[in-house]
Amino acid sequence: MHNKEIRLASRPSGMPALDNFQFVETEAPSPNDGDVLLRTVYISVDPYLRGRMREGRSYVAPFVVGDVITSGAVAEVVESQSPAFHAGDVVSGMLGWRLYNVANAAELLKLTGNMPPGVSLSTALGVLGMPGLTAYFGLLDIGKPKEGETVVVSGAAGAVGMTVCQIAKLKGCRVVGIAGGADKKQYLVDQLSVHDAIDYKADNIHETLKTSCPKGIDVYFDNVGGEVSDAVLPLIKHGARIIICGQISLYNLDKPDVGTRPQPYVLINSALMQGFIITDYSARFSEGIRQLAQWMMAGRLKHVETVVEGFENTPEAFIGLFKGENLGKQIVRVS
Amino acid sequence: MHNKEIRLASRPSGMPALDNFQFVETEAPSPNDGDVLLRTVYISVDPYLRGRMREGRSYVAPFVVGDVITSGAVAEVVESQSPAFHAGDVVSGMLGWRLYNVANAAELLKLTGNMPPGVSLSTALGVLGMPGLTAYFGLLDIGKPKEGETVVVSGAAGAVGMTVCQIAKLKGCRVVGIAGGADKKQYLVDQLSVHDAIDYKADNIHETLKTSCPKGIDVYFDNVGGEVSDAVLPLIKHGARIIICGQISLYNLDKPDVGTRPQPYVLINSALMQGFIITDYSARFSEGIRQLAQWMMAGRLKHVETVVEGFENTPEAFIGLFKGENLGKQIVRVS
Repeated sequence: MHNKEIRLASRPSGMPALDNFQFVETEAPSPNDGDVLLRTVYISVDPYLRGRMREGRSYVAPFVVGDVITSGAVAEVVESQSPAFHAGDVVSGMLGWRLYNVANAAELLKLTGNMPPGVSLSTALGVLGMPGLTAYFGLLDIGKPKEGETVVVSGAAGAVGMTVCQIAKLKGCRVVGIAGGADKKQYLVDQLSVHDAIDYKADNIHETLKTSCPKGIDVYFDNVGGEVSDAVLPLIKHGARIIICGQISLYNLDKPDVGTRPQPYVLINSALMQGFIITDYSARFSEGIRQLAQWMMAGRLKHVETVVEGFENTPEAFIGLFKGENLGKQIVRVS
Repeated sequence: MHNKEIRLASRPSGMPALDNFQFVETEAPSPNDGDVLLRTVYISVDPYLRGRMREGRSYVAPFVVGDVITSGAVAEVVESQSPAFHAGDVVSGMLGWRLYNVANAAELLKLTGNMPPGVSLSTALGVLGMPGLTAYFGLLDIGKPKEGETVVVSGAAGAVGMTVCQIAKLKGCRVVGIAGGADKKQYLVDQLSVHDAIDYKADNIHETLKTSCPKGIDVYFDNVGGEVSDAVLPLIKHGARIIICGQISLYNLDKPDVGTRPQPYVLINSALMQGFIITDYSARFSEGIRQLAQWMMAGRLKHVETVVEGFENTPEAFIGLFKGENLGKQIVRVS
């Protein structure tokens, strides 16, 4: 069967560009025993993939130049050589950026029959997938927000950030979201009802943070890093928890970033800074998904997607993440 | 009774200088009911006092200009108006930099009869006092070192650092100490038997750390901060613990320090960075002292003091901390 795939043509230097990606026409392999043949429906593009395009160590092993890129995806079973799946089943998993993939049944999650009714299957890549789980465990397990505390979220209009904002509100916290752009700021205030939102591109973040957080900052959920974090650090309180979930402002730098050292703030506040990757919590995924779905069905947890149409636009959708083009979860609809 | 005290004459700008301190002749007050009159025997000078000389927020409230400096001290009871103490008892507590202090009995710890036999009373300011407890709880409670792990200690030849090195060795870790100067490096290797020591003034710390820590770094006990930490961060392993105990290299800076941002390293390694102040652990002090004394009496925990003679040299002894003049605990012997 005719197939198409997207390979890493070269490692990006700085901001990724279209010529770092190569489209190749291939033939889809046939599934062996235990495998399924999958037609890609949605592809998830995520900031962390930038780390894998680098040569050095990141979360996960780096991509090899010339190999197909892989990320989270939703796909439909076309042909199954496994008793676990039937043609027509919809699944999620880590799949290649291809029109068709062959995958082992053990590496796939069945969505058919397992999603809340009336919910788009694409949410398995967003609020009911890795981004939702990242928000849930990062905020609750590391951040441990208490009622009345102030929670600041950077990248607040992204897939993870907007879920963090809403869970923090559910826990009775004062929530301040930081995002780039007037539309995102307005979304946070109007749709997610955060207590305050800051447009770091237009507002003086140092000044506005002070007025937004009159009692200081107890929890900082950081997706962005860099200068945004520089503004947060002087306001943290004794016993503050800083969750390092992402550092998107730094992913395209080719050298270690230089800026305000946080250690003195961590020191004088007996503060905690903790990095994590969601796979650290894999044993508890079902707990997280259950709670997120329950909040969602009760109308207490909203989600937004930015959908790009067409497989051929996958690299552009990925690059757009670093330009802040997405509101909520960035998805590519393939078919 | 004739008395003498040392006041904060002005806030230091950068490195503290002698003219930031003022010697004043006074009269010692008489103890009221519940108080004792104390003759100072040893004064502890500690890096953290620099933070209190600054106007802004630090660990503890800042000193007021014109007021007497206070720090840990060992003193002898001259006159007691409390049933808890008798003349001749030796105590420790937070006392003014004075020849004689009046203090409330409730704020003092009796050393007479409570110290291990044959041990200098000054150890109540060092290995059996705040620095020892800081090493004990910081390393074990936050660092949680496991047998076979690699522990790197900055400021390794200071009062806290050398205790950390030895406790880490007791726990079966590979220990690498970083200190400034050939004599300190030699002390760490010859006397404390660390696996490797680095003189950050003479050695290329980036290169030597790599060879000293071939398997990477699991625990970093940081007393120093700044460029020393910059060299440590690229070598931390997944799940590393970074204990922010002090940042002596930064205490004399008047602006937030700029350098390598650690957040990306914390992120990709799911690492923990935790600041603390020893008073966070006050409920467990007796546990810590008991264990430290036991190791000491068993000959498994050494300590070193650098003693300056004479009350009038207290400011110089304090300033010397920032020049790295002390090996182990810096003490002033008053009488």
